[in-house]
Amino acid sequence: MESFFKVKKSEEVFKILDGFGPSGEEQISLEQALGRVLAQDLIAPEDLPGFFRSTMDGYAVRAKGTFGASESIPALFDVTGEVLMGRIPQMVVGDGQAVKISTGGMLPEGADGVVMIEYCHLLDEDTLEINRAISPLENVIQPADDFAEKDLIFKKGRLLSAQDLGLMAGFGQSEVTVYRRPKVAVISTGDEIVPIEKRPLPGQVRDINRYTLGAFCRRLGAIPLYLGLCPDDFETLRDKTAEALSRADALWLSGGSSVGTRDLTLRAFETLPDFKLLVHGISISPGKPTIIGKSGPKPVIGLPGHVTSALVVAEIFLTRLLYRLSGRLDFPVGHQRMIEAELSRNVESASGRDDYIRVRLAEKGDKLIAEPIFGKSALLSTLVEADGLIRVDMNAEGLYQGEKVKVLLFESANGGIQ
Amino acid sequence: MESFFKVKKSEEVFKILDGFGPSGEEQISLEQALGRVLAQDLIAPEDLPGFFRSTMDGYAVRAKGTFGASESIPALFDVTGEVLMGRIPQMVVGDGQAVKISTGGMLPEGADGVVMIEYCHLLDEDTLEINRAISPLENVIQPADDFAEKDLIFKKGRLLSAQDLGLMAGFGQSEVTVYRRPKVAVISTGDEIVPIEKRPLPGQVRDINRYTLGAFCRRLGAIPLYLGLCPDDFETLRDKTAEALSRADALWLSGGSSVGTRDLTLRAFETLPDFKLLVHGISISPGKPTIIGKSGPKPVIGLPGHVTSALVVAEIFLTRLLYRLSGRLDFPVGHQRMIEAELSRNVESASGRDDYIRVRLAEKGDKLIAEPIFGKSALLSTLVEADGLIRVDMNAEGLYQGEKVKVLLFESANGGIQ
Repeated sequence: MESFFKVKKSEEVFKILDGFGPSGEEQISLEQALGRVLAQDLIAPEDLPGFFRSTMDGYAVRAKGTFGASESIPALFDVTGEVLMGRIPQMVVGDGQAVKISTGGMLPEGADGVVMIEYCHLLDEDTLEINRAISPLENVIQPADDFAEKDLIFKKGRLLSAQDLGLMAGFGQSEVTVYRRPKVAVISTGDEIVPIEKRPLPGQVRDINRYTLGAFCRRLGAIPLYLGLCPDDFETLRDKTAEALSRADALWLSGGSSVGTRDLTLRAFETLPDFKLLVHGISISPGKPTIIGKSGPKPVIGLPGHVTSALVVAEIFLTRLLYRLSGRLDFPVGHQRMIEAELSRNVESASGRDDYIRVRLAEKGDKLIAEPIFGKSALLSTLVEADGLIRVDMNAEGLYQGEKVKVLLFESANGGIQ
Repeated sequence: MESFFKVKKSEEVFKILDGFGPSGEEQISLEQALGRVLAQDLIAPEDLPGFFRSTMDGYAVRAKGTFGASESIPALFDVTGEVLMGRIPQMVVGDGQAVKISTGGMLPEGADGVVMIEYCHLLDEDTLEINRAISPLENVIQPADDFAEKDLIFKKGRLLSAQDLGLMAGFGQSEVTVYRRPKVAVISTGDEIVPIEKRPLPGQVRDINRYTLGAFCRRLGAIPLYLGLCPDDFETLRDKTAEALSRADALWLSGGSSVGTRDLTLRAFETLPDFKLLVHGISISPGKPTIIGKSGPKPVIGLPGHVTSALVVAEIFLTRLLYRLSGRLDFPVGHQRMIEAELSRNVESASGRDDYIRVRLAEKGDKLIAEPIFGKSALLSTLVEADGLIRVDMNAEGLYQGEKVKVLLFESANGGIQ
């Protein structure tokens, strides 16, 4: 009866998955750090920009000399020089003096503000008319305006974006300590599965899960390790799973959704060192016959063999697992991946489980419509037509046409390139 | 006056960018194809699944033998065998006969439907009670149900997702013809810029654009080619830009946002073979001093030096450019990257240009709030605080607090890993 009690609700499974973590750190160059996860807090090593810096093209002056200046009563200044970009200005700006400066230039000593070029008019080479007052520090960034030394910039666990890399470049961080990318062993099982290079005989099908699950890993920054096909045979399964855990940080095994082979999978898992069964079945559809365990700190996952079921489980649960194995501290379902749409028709659902329904999105006038795709889940065609998933909660009996639903968008493939 | 007339509105710039295209094709393995763009239409080479296939665990029978069966009046069948996974069943199913079958198994000759195991009860080893009627083809996929030979599966120009790879695996496509990833030469200019490994003197700043623009390329599947720093000097600029175009498919040069250096950039561009100036300034803020030209078929882009301005131009325009150079036929701003939020305060805007305002998203109860970030654009800190951009149209004078706005989310860094 133990296995009966292991059937878990989604929320329980999420909590279990949150118990997994990254398997190590490494130092990489900043150029390679996009999409990687910080393994150390980043503290500002210095003030930024570190000097008084102009934010405009114009003239550096003492602000008080412009007080009261207007188009009808301009103030007059002597032009005494020009700040060269990237150089420390050698002059000192006194009362009534102005020095030409470009955006990004360093403010010369004595000056405390910059008048935009639009409000300046050169009467001759040395005489400047200013027709607008500025306040002290106007159009100027102070040395610690951006960051002060020892500020906490990023917490560890942050997924690094292009902007983040820019910020780290600004601090001269040419190397960065990140978590290792998790390596996931991917195994497909089933006597009917053949490698895709082979022409299947009637009754056989090509190994699809290897490619969808492998790509799913890569999309989230993990490294798939393909261990190939495995027949429904206990000894081979046992040896393959042992090999997987000796070479990878996690094991994803798909197949064996029929009762007999599911038991075979679990028996093989139970031979792994220090194995603990955490989840034996999840109260969702599709995807119920999912097994989650761990061998020491490493997650061991048994997925349904159906491509669509395996991918739904991956979207809902393995995304979260990969976040944790990557060291990310955020949650996979944020506003970035949820979108509201109107349901195109009634959807029935059995209570007692969360139903995930694939939907296609379509624009109708101003509205975004979610159209359920009801094809048999064995049909691959239904897989590529869907833009995302909606969930019918286990306590609901269905959803009504016209109801607002939240669509979990499938991650775009953008950038998941090696 | 020519340059004056080249200041373009956003929509005009989009049209110009749509004129660029991919620079070639290559054949790669399916395993490497995530996030790549199909260069050929994909036609189904065969029927899929190609045989009559069970979608359930149960018994294969002639459906008419179950007609009228119910819990009170079950129908009796002789069990005459079992379908082995991946094998062609050797038996023929006659009237009153039933053969055990698993999900994915091939239907034996004679049978035309599968009764789910839940409605079957073995009286002894050879005798089966069925207590529910099925219709012909129930729980069965026909040979061409998924795809028929010669069906158009994907059009060229499609960005390949994990699901797409699965579908191609199902057809045995171990190789796939995709467009080459565009190679983008990235150059930072400015006398004040130093490599990030160097400690900047007062007045100098580290080269940030190299990292943000490089990561931006990679996020969208392009390959950055770093050509390093270039001082504000005509001859060096001319030689660097020539080198860039001989080695890459596009040139992105940042810096020179002050008037004098902008002219220098343009003069250097004009020495490129077959150069044509397409855009000299865009009516947006920030990002107005953007230059777009082409040298033969290759785009040549001059970006503002400010990191934030350069990134806004990249988000709005260079995303589109990279879609085109990658051969993608879709548009970068779909529902996947737009989200509706409520504006937290009034935003003023000058008319005559599209203003892009960086916003931070925050959840307040049920609502998603967009909070404008008004820091000086020279501050890097404002860059990493923002979740996306809102646009104040050139014909609007501003936006009101409480108004619903569409937020263009910055692309997540997910998966942009090499």
